[in-house]
Amino acid sequence: MPILQVELLKGRTVEQKREMVKKVTDAITETLDCPKEAVSIIIREMELENFAKAGVLKADSK
Amino acid sequence: MPILQVELLKGRTVEQKREMVKKVTDAITETLDCPKEAVSIIIREMELENFAKAGVLKADSK
Amino acid sequence: MPILQVELLKGRTVEQKREMVKKVTDAITETLDCPKEAVSIIIREMELENFAKAGVLKADSK
Amino acid sequence: MPILQVELLKGRTVEQKREMVKKVTDAITETLDCPKEAVSIIIREMELENFAKAGVLKADSK
Amino acid sequence: MPILQVELLKGRTVEQKREMVKKVTDAITETLDCPKEAVSIIIREMELENFAKAGVLKADSK
Amino acid sequence: MPILQVELLKGRTVEQKREMVKKVTDAITETLDCPKEAVSIIIREMELENFAKAGVLKADSK
Repeated sequence: MPILQVELLKGRTVEQKREMVKKVTDAITETLDCPKEAVSIIIREMELENFAKAGVLKADSK
Repeated sequence: MPILQVELLKGRTVEQKREMVKKVTDAITETLDCPKEAVSIIIREMELENFAKAGVLKADSK
Repeated sequence: MPILQVELLKGRTVEQKREMVKKVTDAITETLDCPKEAVSIIIREMELENFAKAGVLKADSK
Repeated sequence: MPILQVELLKGRTVEQKREMVKKVTDAITETLDCPKEAVSIIIREMELENFAKAGVLKADSK
Repeated sequence: MPILQVELLKGRTVEQKREMVKKVTDAITETLDCPKEAVSIIIREMELENFAKAGVLKADSK
Repeated sequence: MPILQVELLKGRTVEQKREMVKKVTDAITETLDCPKEAVSIIIREMELENFAKAGVLKADSK
């Protein structure tokens, strides 16, 4: 039942997401002792104007 | 003050969401002993390429 | 694959949670056209000092 | 390491978000005794049909 | 309806949380043009073994 | 800036969490093309009475 939420800035390809969920799921099952089928991953993509670090929007700091 | 976050794959109609929030709110107020006004529901819709089960993107498993 | 996160103030009994997840799951399956097995619910309980409305901690407004 | 997630109805300008993350970050660093660089803010915007209060979609209650 | 979730490492006092929710709520209402009553804040506190940066648990990096 | 939230049932050791965040961070950096320092992981542990699948609490289905 591990459920993961992954927040990312926009711009990754489907191929990158495909590899990511495969490898992250492997990392979870190897270390937490649970079957692959139990792992769910939600990906959320953010626009650059929807993430801030140190009080500055990513859209302004690039 | 119950606050619910509901993650869904894309594709539901407004009519389905309307019915869902009505019935889920009823279920919460009946069982948790709180007024209807206290219940907030956030719906988040995911693209098929943004959800994975068992290490495989939904976009690939359909 | 609906995944729900339910934020509650502390104090509900296991019996209340049992009824809640049963009824909320029914509400989801009836309105969103998905099997019961696809519905996951995460419950998170908050101390009164960890929730605020209108800038005031619940611990101070009771 | 404070990480904030801010859920909003759609419609704010970039200028409003810019001011918001600046002032919220200041409020966090002043009260929680942590450096500005440690504060991350995720903004999530909702369509009116994706938020409900008291069992009614915002899209229907406006 | 802004709803904020604030993730923190454990160790803040109630007094610090009280000041934080007050100032963060002010920052939100001033910049997003919404009444104080509309702002909810959820605080979640993490043990040092439940947060990691750069692949290392906070419990190990202190 | 990938930020991950990992929801788990209670019961893992610190050693398991240490291995998990190390391997998950590697999986993220390898596939999403970002430095290790940019990856944050929040772990949230649930009691068996705070997770439900198919309308049944985990505390009741074991």
